[in-house]
Amino acid sequence: MKLWQKNSKLDPRIEAYTVGDDPILDLNLVKYDCLASIAHTRMLGKIGVLEKEEVEKLEKELNHIIELNQKNKFHITLEQEDCHTAIENHLTEKLGELGEKIHTARSRNDQVLAALRLYYKSELDKIEKMIHDFLQSLQNLMKHSGSVQFPGYTHTRKAMVSSVSLWAAGYAESMADNLSLLDFTRELIDQSPLGTGAGYGVPLNVDREFTAEQAGFSRVQQHPTYVQLSRGKLESTLLHAMTQIMVDLNRLASDLILFSESVLGYFRLPPALCTGSSIMPHKKNPDVLELVRAHYHRVLAGEIQLKTQIGNLISGYHRDMQITKKPVMESLDITEKSITIITLVIDNLKVDPEKCKAGLTPEIYATEKVYALVKEGVPFREAYRRIAREFE
Amino acid sequence: MKLWQKNSKLDPRIEAYTVGDDPILDLNLVKYDCLASIAHTRMLGKIGVLEKEEVEKLEKELNHIIELNQKNKFHITLEQEDCHTAIENHLTEKLGELGEKIHTARSRNDQVLAALRLYYKSELDKIEKMIHDFLQSLQNLMKHSGSVQFPGYTHTRKAMVSSVSLWAAGYAESMADNLSLLDFTRELIDQSPLGTGAGYGVPLNVDREFTAEQAGFSRVQQHPTYVQLSRGKLESTLLHAMTQIMVDLNRLASDLILFSESVLGYFRLPPALCTGSSIMPHKKNPDVLELVRAHYHRVLAGEIQLKTQIGNLISGYHRDMQITKKPVMESLDITEKSITIITLVIDNLKVDPEKCKAGLTPEIYATEKVYALVKEGVPFREAYRRIAREFE
Amino acid sequence: MKLWQKNSKLDPRIEAYTVGDDPILDLNLVKYDCLASIAHTRMLGKIGVLEKEEVEKLEKELNHIIELNQKNKFHITLEQEDCHTAIENHLTEKLGELGEKIHTARSRNDQVLAALRLYYKSELDKIEKMIHDFLQSLQNLMKHSGSVQFPGYTHTRKAMVSSVSLWAAGYAESMADNLSLLDFTRELIDQSPLGTGAGYGVPLNVDREFTAEQAGFSRVQQHPTYVQLSRGKLESTLLHAMTQIMVDLNRLASDLILFSESVLGYFRLPPALCTGSSIMPHKKNPDVLELVRAHYHRVLAGEIQLKTQIGNLISGYHRDMQITKKPVMESLDITEKSITIITLVIDNLKVDPEKCKAGLTPEIYATEKVYALVKEGVPFREAYRRIAREFE
Amino acid sequence: MKLWQKNSKLDPRIEAYTVGDDPILDLNLVKYDCLASIAHTRMLGKIGVLEKEEVEKLEKELNHIIELNQKNKFHITLEQEDCHTAIENHLTEKLGELGEKIHTARSRNDQVLAALRLYYKSELDKIEKMIHDFLQSLQNLMKHSGSVQFPGYTHTRKAMVSSVSLWAAGYAESMADNLSLLDFTRELIDQSPLGTGAGYGVPLNVDREFTAEQAGFSRVQQHPTYVQLSRGKLESTLLHAMTQIMVDLNRLASDLILFSESVLGYFRLPPALCTGSSIMPHKKNPDVLELVRAHYHRVLAGEIQLKTQIGNLISGYHRDMQITKKPVMESLDITEKSITIITLVIDNLKVDPEKCKAGLTPEIYATEKVYALVKEGVPFREAYRRIAREFE
Repeated sequence: MKLWQKNSKLDPRIEAYTVGDDPILDLNLVKYDCLASIAHTRMLGKIGVLEKEEVEKLEKELNHIIELNQKNKFHITLEQEDCHTAIENHLTEKLGELGEKIHTARSRNDQVLAALRLYYKSELDKIEKMIHDFLQSLQNLMKHSGSVQFPGYTHTRKAMVSSVSLWAAGYAESMADNLSLLDFTRELIDQSPLGTGAGYGVPLNVDREFTAEQAGFSRVQQHPTYVQLSRGKLESTLLHAMTQIMVDLNRLASDLILFSESVLGYFRLPPALCTGSSIMPHKKNPDVLELVRAHYHRVLAGEIQLKTQIGNLISGYHRDMQITKKPVMESLDITEKSITIITLVIDNLKVDPEKCKAGLTPEIYATEKVYALVKEGVPFREAYRRIAREFE
Repeated sequence: MKLWQKNSKLDPRIEAYTVGDDPILDLNLVKYDCLASIAHTRMLGKIGVLEKEEVEKLEKELNHIIELNQKNKFHITLEQEDCHTAIENHLTEKLGELGEKIHTARSRNDQVLAALRLYYKSELDKIEKMIHDFLQSLQNLMKHSGSVQFPGYTHTRKAMVSSVSLWAAGYAESMADNLSLLDFTRELIDQSPLGTGAGYGVPLNVDREFTAEQAGFSRVQQHPTYVQLSRGKLESTLLHAMTQIMVDLNRLASDLILFSESVLGYFRLPPALCTGSSIMPHKKNPDVLELVRAHYHRVLAGEIQLKTQIGNLISGYHRDMQITKKPVMESLDITEKSITIITLVIDNLKVDPEKCKAGLTPEIYATEKVYALVKEGVPFREAYRRIAREFE
Repeated sequence: MKLWQKNSKLDPRIEAYTVGDDPILDLNLVKYDCLASIAHTRMLGKIGVLEKEEVEKLEKELNHIIELNQKNKFHITLEQEDCHTAIENHLTEKLGELGEKIHTARSRNDQVLAALRLYYKSELDKIEKMIHDFLQSLQNLMKHSGSVQFPGYTHTRKAMVSSVSLWAAGYAESMADNLSLLDFTRELIDQSPLGTGAGYGVPLNVDREFTAEQAGFSRVQQHPTYVQLSRGKLESTLLHAMTQIMVDLNRLASDLILFSESVLGYFRLPPALCTGSSIMPHKKNPDVLELVRAHYHRVLAGEIQLKTQIGNLISGYHRDMQITKKPVMESLDITEKSITIITLVIDNLKVDPEKCKAGLTPEIYATEKVYALVKEGVPFREAYRRIAREFE
Repeated sequence: MKLWQKNSKLDPRIEAYTVGDDPILDLNLVKYDCLASIAHTRMLGKIGVLEKEEVEKLEKELNHIIELNQKNKFHITLEQEDCHTAIENHLTEKLGELGEKIHTARSRNDQVLAALRLYYKSELDKIEKMIHDFLQSLQNLMKHSGSVQFPGYTHTRKAMVSSVSLWAAGYAESMADNLSLLDFTRELIDQSPLGTGAGYGVPLNVDREFTAEQAGFSRVQQHPTYVQLSRGKLESTLLHAMTQIMVDLNRLASDLILFSESVLGYFRLPPALCTGSSIMPHKKNPDVLELVRAHYHRVLAGEIQLKTQIGNLISGYHRDMQITKKPVMESLDITEKSITIITLVIDNLKVDPEKCKAGLTPEIYATEKVYALVKEGVPFREAYRRIAREFE
């Protein structure tokens, strides 16, 4: 029985189409929906809608659902449509009429947003930790091989001398800026939608500050209309943060793919990280790096989807928003896996000092020669032209 | 044991990351990989690599796999990585050394493309049929309600008189053009990659025309290098065809959402197609239409992913291509479901003649008044200005 | 004075914002708008709205505008907004009341579509010719250097022996498929919108077949509602064709950038095609190739814009469509310039046989060794494992 | 003469293709390139590369160029390629050998980034101011009409009572969050690339902190490799901020288009903000709103371009980056114009209290009826079902 269901029966084909992947995707949200429901329940207690004892019963059962979910024992049926219905159904089954009271002063609209945002915050915390591990791996690489010099490229052409440290530090600094973006994103998301109903408030005196605090939000999102406008929009910033991380991994992977190519060979991937070919027995392929590279585009596609699907719509909730769940969850998952796997790659990366040295052919020192002349007093542009003649 | 596996063990985390969703996605391909393998086997028989008896044995076992797959009894393990390995493993297990021969003169690179293209062709056939059903539904709608007039809009403003027939016929004609695009796409895809190995041919005299014909391809894709260049590129055209279909459904859904709004009310959705609200008991929401509308953007995101991930890569196979499978399969699935569901909506759509008539307010006849003057000899621009004054 | 202007004055800031770039962009359309207007005028003559003499006068003046435009002497002011107004204004100025009659039985909606489609058809013809030149350049390259062998890559790793012919032929075959797509696209676009007014027909007996034929369209687009639905949608297919061309150029450029890198050096770009660095005097950079590569993404962004901006809109014209002009015109321009420049690059490309030979290191023959064993009767998978051991 | 030019002549077709639109686009950067050059010059003075007098001469001439540029009297020729060359050429022409010294210790790579970032910062300041004006307009609207109630929608269906205040405040709060994003973006961009050369440092002891401070950057971007990695990536965040602003305007415009439709009519646009139709004399169209809506997609396409074109590239500068200039400049321009125009719309928007009241039909109070029962002690879900029966 769905939350909104009355007498008339929904066509089963419509049901299957509208429910979509929610019964599976929503398993990620059960915990967070329960946590938000506990906060909501406590608030209902505080304003006198529920008795103290009722609050305790609901809280206990909601905690029980969290446990069931952790053991993969909480299920969402197609009939139930989503985690919100499954949870309310469970409560009503266990607690009778009391379960029918919990939806007082809320709508699925603010409920789903609360669960999603608590979930995002938790994912962001995980990702920050993973990035710190990645930065540590870069530090280790710099420690053991940082001083090895190899060619720096511009235009995919040898340009000037670079080094393992210079290479790794560039990515580390870029990731540090990504951490700032994650902080900003976390703060942006950390506002409570609870108590805004379907986007036009609820006709009851609710204590939104209290609910927010109980749910662990750092502030209240003021206007119910903004709550709905921000659906898909906050998620766009979240996925923008993911694509900024992924683009760094994409380019790092692109570097490693080229720099571990047999002729250049500045870096080497150990066999345990390489895959082979079904026809060419000699191949040791950097598939893992190619997939990191490719996954950037998957995450980017998710961001684009969010940004295009909310356009041209009037304000207020639309069911279109349901389709934003999948790209967000997928993108978080891909980003997490990709950071972890790249950390593993960096941990196992070998630098080949011989090949690096061999790569430092004479032209790579041309700029330094220019500056030797500059130090002797030759104007830069004139020094440049003189050295240029040597390489014609 | 993977097709390319030798002694060294792949790190299990690398394995999980590189294998990804393939064991699930590839279940869609088992049948087509077997069909292509049968064609390949026959060709090996024809050129003398296999005995006639060997061909028969392989063919029998491959047909058996198709049956198992139809009964959901053929499984692909993480260890096996993909359907190609699972099938070769199965053959070797059942037929011993003979199974080890089937990969002669092919690579997974041409093998996967063959399976994918046979799968695409079959999906395209399905979609064409679904579109014909949709067109039939539009015909029925025109038959029972075509003559009902209601306002035609430009700029979301009442413009001139339209009718159910005019409205439906516009979509029907647009879908007919989509059918041409599907035909073109099918023809483009209908070229055999078999016999091109990993993109640089196979060092054996294979009969590519024969394999192509046996696999049901209408022609041979000539150059092995093009075979690899076309990965992701042919799929782009395939998904472009899907987005062209979906954009029509998106706009049709947008029309119906607005035109069935209570104040306008030209159309009505029966309750069995509507969903409700968890907080507002009066709501009868067109969720199904909103989801069709939103799914356009999901399919579009898939197309964009394909188009961006193949850019900036040198020619020749890259593992990045694996990541193209999911958006393609998802998009085909979404498009099929959306056509079917919109057909169901059209079949159940009610036209409200009262509301339609009520919508035909005086301003909608302004242009006809201009033309009445034109017929009396007034120059068009002058007639236009005269009538305009009436509406100031 | 704009076509729709009555007494009230438009706010000048609104005017500037709504007119946008049209006065510049529309210079591309003047010729085609005049040609379509001539066809329309002749039809008005045929159905008796205009006298034979009036048709001749209008036709003469419209031809005069085409001449002025060719000499860059036809101007469109901000006040006039677009080429359609500028042309009607010009006619009214020269021919008085007769100019006020030409807009009979049409709207700017069908008028602009007619001009755009004639323009697209002409651009498509140009592009087809350019592709033929490009294919000729590839033929020449194959003629003078086709037999030179160099490494074929998979996973950016040396895989098997390739050759200049195999490399070039892959792109040639891909371009040949693009030509089919261009043909399909041209045919799709080649339908006349004239006579459909603002999307709901015109209240006058027009002869749409006659207008279509006079304007050089091969058929009539039947339903006025489809005419408006196809705005942006036909253009999507047009830009899809452009991105399919550009992705080939992107990958060809990616190949040449890497293969002309100093260490690999299979190809060389002559100095006249290279640019330098402001700081590094030795650099000979393949900027032209990098820009071809980058321009793919510009064209792709244009296609995406078209596809996202028409979503979620009800049917019927919206002013949003104006914003589709720029990405289409830009993309056609970029594609044309890029094909031309890549043809120039191919014409001047040098193959370095020494470097090519040096690239053919032993591992590249591994697959051939496997097949030597296969020919001796060893099952493929067993042969593969034996040779693999040589490369561990 | 280009900065990198030696003896050999670049093919003029290559020149035209590679230079592209830079001579026009770079006019936006002249001022900022001069400001960054002044900072760089002072630093060269500080470390003893230039005499005090030389610094003064260069500074004076650079300020002169800024003035010329403000009067539209500084030109960039195709031959000069970009503003950097035009400025250096100008200096050399005026100051002889001294002009040849200014490029000491820098590359165009860090130079262009410095100019771009100063330009971005200045644009961000402008945009923040514009948003404050927009917020003020919303405040005014709330002041004069805030208490007027009209229907709030979900699923494009009447849901609950909303009001002009509730509607406007939602957008105001969303814009306030956009201001936070702008602040974050400004801070992210506010790091000095000067002194990092072409991405691998300069072989001279430069004082990067001093240059940064003189140029008005709040900090130094540490690693030269990150400086290059951040090209296109910082711009992605910049354009993400623009799309977040534009999506709010897109939805606000979507609301106004629908809510000012004649049947609903909650809002009215005065005639001075409306445009007409060339065929339908009664039309008063909200073109300006439709163009704001459409421009969101243009800006989004720009963001997507940036994000796709930097993917799959190894680290280090590529000429591809040149193609990022146009979408960024265009997007800033469109966003600025769109905020300004929407502010004008809000300033002139009329609320129609009669139509608003008429829109408040009985079903809109259903939820309030449920809560009346809840207050009487009926469990929410039961109260919901009772009221639902009234609307069946």
